[in-house]
Amino acid sequence: MPITPDLLDRLAARLGPGGFSTDPDVLAPHLREWRGRIQGVSPFLAMPGDTAAVADVVRLCREAGAAITPQGGNTGLVGGQIPDGEILLSLKRMNRIRSVDPANDSLVAEAGAVLAVVQEAAIQADRRFPLSLGSQGSAMIGGLISTNAGGVHVMRFGMMRELVLGLEAVLPDGRVLDALSPLRKNNTGYDLKQLLIGAEGTLGVITAAALKLAPAPRQHVVAMAGVTEPGHALTLLHAVRGQVEGLSAFELMNRQSIALALSRVPGLREPLALAPPFTVLLEFETTGSEPLEDNVEAVLADMLETGVIVDAAVSRSQTQAREFWRLRESLPEGHRTGAAQVNLDISVPVSQTPAFIAAGDALGRRMVADARVVAFGHMGDGNIHFSVLAPDAAPHDAFPYHPLQEALHDLAVSLGGSISAEHGIGVARKDELLRFKDPVALDVMRTLKAALDPQRLMNPRALI
Amino acid sequence: MPITPDLLDRLAARLGPGGFSTDPDVLAPHLREWRGRIQGVSPFLAMPGDTAAVADVVRLCREAGAAITPQGGNTGLVGGQIPDGEILLSLKRMNRIRSVDPANDSLVAEAGAVLAVVQEAAIQADRRFPLSLGSQGSAMIGGLISTNAGGVHVMRFGMMRELVLGLEAVLPDGRVLDALSPLRKNNTGYDLKQLLIGAEGTLGVITAAALKLAPAPRQHVVAMAGVTEPGHALTLLHAVRGQVEGLSAFELMNRQSIALALSRVPGLREPLALAPPFTVLLEFETTGSEPLEDNVEAVLADMLETGVIVDAAVSRSQTQAREFWRLRESLPEGHRTGAAQVNLDISVPVSQTPAFIAAGDALGRRMVADARVVAFGHMGDGNIHFSVLAPDAAPHDAFPYHPLQEALHDLAVSLGGSISAEHGIGVARKDELLRFKDPVALDVMRTLKAALDPQRLMNPRALI
Repeated sequence: MPITPDLLDRLAARLGPGGFSTDPDVLAPHLREWRGRIQGVSPFLAMPGDTAAVADVVRLCREAGAAITPQGGNTGLVGGQIPDGEILLSLKRMNRIRSVDPANDSLVAEAGAVLAVVQEAAIQADRRFPLSLGSQGSAMIGGLISTNAGGVHVMRFGMMRELVLGLEAVLPDGRVLDALSPLRKNNTGYDLKQLLIGAEGTLGVITAAALKLAPAPRQHVVAMAGVTEPGHALTLLHAVRGQVEGLSAFELMNRQSIALALSRVPGLREPLALAPPFTVLLEFETTGSEPLEDNVEAVLADMLETGVIVDAAVSRSQTQAREFWRLRESLPEGHRTGAAQVNLDISVPVSQTPAFIAAGDALGRRMVADARVVAFGHMGDGNIHFSVLAPDAAPHDAFPYHPLQEALHDLAVSLGGSISAEHGIGVARKDELLRFKDPVALDVMRTLKAALDPQRLMNPRALI
Repeated sequence: MPITPDLLDRLAARLGPGGFSTDPDVLAPHLREWRGRIQGVSPFLAMPGDTAAVADVVRLCREAGAAITPQGGNTGLVGGQIPDGEILLSLKRMNRIRSVDPANDSLVAEAGAVLAVVQEAAIQADRRFPLSLGSQGSAMIGGLISTNAGGVHVMRFGMMRELVLGLEAVLPDGRVLDALSPLRKNNTGYDLKQLLIGAEGTLGVITAAALKLAPAPRQHVVAMAGVTEPGHALTLLHAVRGQVEGLSAFELMNRQSIALALSRVPGLREPLALAPPFTVLLEFETTGSEPLEDNVEAVLADMLETGVIVDAAVSRSQTQAREFWRLRESLPEGHRTGAAQVNLDISVPVSQTPAFIAAGDALGRRMVADARVVAFGHMGDGNIHFSVLAPDAAPHDAFPYHPLQEALHDLAVSLGGSISAEHGIGVARKDELLRFKDPVALDVMRTLKAALDPQRLMNPRALI
């Protein structure tokens, strides 16, 4: 890779003091994947402070034929943000909220703005920014858009894609695409921002975005419901959606996922006395004055009576609502036991989630002795985080990591599903992408990449 | 254009009886824009019955270097569906609902399925397909996707783009892109369907789509509210959104738009006794059991008391709800008086709608003597259908059509807006697109077109 001392000098001169670093101690946290699974390498950390500086970095690298790995909050789970020799381009200094327009339900944030900061800016304007996920205290807007982030409120508010009204980006040739206008409707040609959303930095560097806000909710209720099988959870989902306004999250947790969390994360409590095989967290948020808690209780009572659910609890306070969420949010930590395991981010049509969970469970138990099968996540979107863990003491080298992952991916795809619902492809899932993606689609992707980044300098190891 | 007898023979042989026509009487309705503004020409109407036949038509035309104009329900307003010598490819025989999956809130419809038929299929499954617009009795799914249609429910359910889960399309090289899976979350590479949505047939022919359904509403209330100025309508919008769940339409109508409709469309009634300067139609639809009508009345009473609105009426029956809608839906007919006029489909940030209407009104009156200024439409999305009409008796040739259109487009763009919110570019707005579109964006659009359709055979006169 032609990263010469001359290029580094030019970049340093353009970026100025504070705008770059070659200090290994400064670079170190940017080169380490946050779970420690990947250790990257880079000779140069660029930290441009504005869009013009990003454009110049891209241009200088292009002239030198040097590749770039863009990075936001470094919270990705598939390695797309970790350089392996490329120039590392961190957007973290571009962290301003440029403007807030409550009367348009929008704000403009730079790529390095942390999600929690954007959420707070919305609250200050008596609005909300509804994207919500575990890493919101460090994930940045640019990375969240580049990976089309999901999270727990997708069923009501959509993926990040649906929340982006406009984008500003530096294209691979160094030109700035200014498509920031926060319009709800704009049919004037190909919607270019859609290409950059979810492109994992391979078609350009997102520098700012106009984001869609929603009204601030006035009422908030979280409930837990127990079911004996996922099919009943599906019945519950549609009954609730058809009878109560404001369902914003519908998160399934199997018994194993809760048991692991309860045993390993201090301060958690079993939410339902019956400890049912599957527990669903339901969140409702409304702007209205209707008696939301009563309405939720009524539909759950109906579901109890008809035997769809076997147990239920409705939050009586914001403290209890937070406690319910804390259980759900602790699940990933709960199953990082150190055991040999495979962790998936599959999706299937919502109607197929029961079939996936049943067949996936059987598959895991067949391929791993004494397997612990963890299934949890965004059932309302058909997105199940599915893991199979060996016993803690079982040797890692005997674990059928690849065959099991492939078999579970095969299962998801056979049900009309996807091997990556919300985490993206990055570096970790490229082989699997090649195995599953429609060859025509792959070919069109390559055509687009070649047309927009013919030198393959933008995040060249990710996605494609 | 190299449309040879040999090509026509090959197409006829592939399509078989019933799959094509060269009869002028059969072609006639397909060649005439529905308002009679454009008369097209084509030697051959292809009416393939399945995706494989569409692919073969595209391949045969490509081998011959012959261009194609795809057509759905022929309801477009900017001429993109009318051929000028090209092979005319009608999707109307591909009109099946291939499948309905209520438990996934989705259905798969072919490109030639009429919107009203799709809506009805959703209702039969106790769901709804929320896209709703004036031409729903004839507009077809493929055209609605190719133009990223809008309509009256965008503020709650989004444009067509947000309602498409998956797509099947024939690419310009004749290959079939199969991306029909109805997933809510799927981050496995560039979201190629986004490129085809709103591309007006220039990047391929959409043959089928997986569409997102919503729960069936249980309650439905339509209200009319009178305001003295658009700024008060904006206050009303945010007050309502912040206090009542379920606002699905927020349509502004100025006095002139209502007056023209009342005087020209039989059977309409003035909804508000005060005949205020601006009337807003608000529609609410909820799945819940809350007293929706009471809630709407309460917020409107509050708005009356604080002087935000000057009059209000809430529908007491579905008959009255339909009557309110009929007034709104009659407005376009009301201002087709035959007078010289300019009709725009602009959008601005919602916060800028009052500024646009005030300045646009002044501009129209300055440039046209005794102008009648019509402003109505989707204020909740910042999308105003804005027209300036000369007196009926004024000569057409003295009307400043182009200077006025340009001045109003300049105004919209100066407020951060767009010259085409929901109708698209087609043939009619290509010059204006070139005048306004960011040159970088235009260049990227050309790069994409060249990469995917290097021979420029797909709807070559539309959009780009």
